[in-house]
Amino acid sequence: AAIDAALGQGPLTGRRVIVTSGPTQEPIDPVRYISNHSSGAQGTAIARALAASGAEVVFVTGPANVPPPEGVQVVRVTTAQDMLEAVQGALPADAAVFAAAVADWRVAQVAGSKMKKTAGEMPTLRFAENPDILASVAQMGAGRPALVVGFAAETDDVVANAQAKRARKGCDWIIANDVSVGTGTFGGADNTVHVVTDQVVEDWPRMGKDAVAARLAQRMAAALNG
Amino acid sequence: AAIDAALGQGPLTGRRVIVTSGPTQEPIDPVRYISNHSSGAQGTAIARALAASGAEVVFVTGPANVPPPEGVQVVRVTTAQDMLEAVQGALPADAAVFAAAVADWRVAQVAGSKMKKTAGEMPTLRFAENPDILASVAQMGAGRPALVVGFAAETDDVVANAQAKRARKGCDWIIANDVSVGTGTFGGADNTVHVVTDQVVEDWPRMGKDAVAARLAQRMAAALNG
Repeated sequence: AAIDAALGQGPLTGRRVIVTSGPTQEPIDPVRYISNHSSGAQGTAIARALAASGAEVVFVTGPANVPPPEGVQVVRVTTAQDMLEAVQGALPADAAVFAAAVADWRVAQVAGSKMKKTAGEMPTLRFAENPDILASVAQMGAGRPALVVGFAAETDDVVANAQAKRARKGCDWIIANDVSVGTGTFGGADNTVHVVTDQVVEDWPRMGKDAVAARLAQRMAAALNG
Repeated sequence: AAIDAALGQGPLTGRRVIVTSGPTQEPIDPVRYISNHSSGAQGTAIARALAASGAEVVFVTGPANVPPPEGVQVVRVTTAQDMLEAVQGALPADAAVFAAAVADWRVAQVAGSKMKKTAGEMPTLRFAENPDILASVAQMGAGRPALVVGFAAETDDVVANAQAKRARKGCDWIIANDVSVGTGTFGGADNTVHVVTDQVVEDWPRMGKDAVAARLAQRMAAALNG
């Protein structure tokens, strides 16, 4: 497969795919921010697997712990709003995989100076809803990628929440995983995912994130070429 | 100096010093957290310089971007509360340098499950004040380290805020730096600091974080041995 890809031959040759990855960071003030424990490992593995299958990959990544893969176009972003703009700028594409753990909320009024601690007084953070990148692409009319894949990081009712999310967002597939403390999914080498489509729920066995990525790339090629 | 240290000889030989470093991370729920842009670079450089001067260093570090130095005892922590406990456990000491960027506030009620996004509804985060590690050590009666050094990361009125902080906390010195966006202090190689004591304010020229650390170690040795 590596040689095929090097020769420009693979089941995804000629396909353009956008992959988002990593956490986003939402500023509170110039010093503080809100983020999440996504390491970017799964999204990075997916981008690598798609590139190895011949796809032209645009890799839109938040501040992740793992370096981006070789052979992809890397677009670095910080906030959810940045990520939306980067994704819109990368369209059109044949497929899009939204593996990033995007902040649902941002701080509504970001302080221009560091918030000072005053004895006995607590800050109040007001939030605003971030753009829904997955839904905005999944519900595009003209120019929608043929295959839109979302991720769901859940701690409870993993499959039921993922099915509801798939319907609500209008995407084709949801890759759901359990990120409860103790599963070691965030930052770990392995992942246990459930692939939710309009027809079925596939429970994939626990495997390395690279193996999840390879299998997903294979499925995506089959769906796009089928 | 490296050879002296290897031979166990240096101006801080026989001295025990606690150094805190890096950001803290305060959980919101199992997935999300609040943190800050401290890379841990300055605290790491200080611990290295103190160890090179012969000190026995306990290095209490939050989740930093840079690896801890060689030749120190590393204690890894996540939250401000963890850090306080680690510092208390490392006492008594001859000196303590509080270079960590400790969160002033934590989320009062950490959600046990991932907070779900509900259309149109924003979460409300209530905060609680974190323990003040610098003040608690600086204001100890018996067993207080002879030299307690705090840091102040400021974006405005850097020196005035640092002087007020020194008086309020009861520490001996404050190392103040400007972390405004654009200074490149957080995550950068250089630092521009002001050393605030009860007598003077010294404005050190912009220099590498290693040079700041070496100079600080020298001053600490002079103060402890003087």
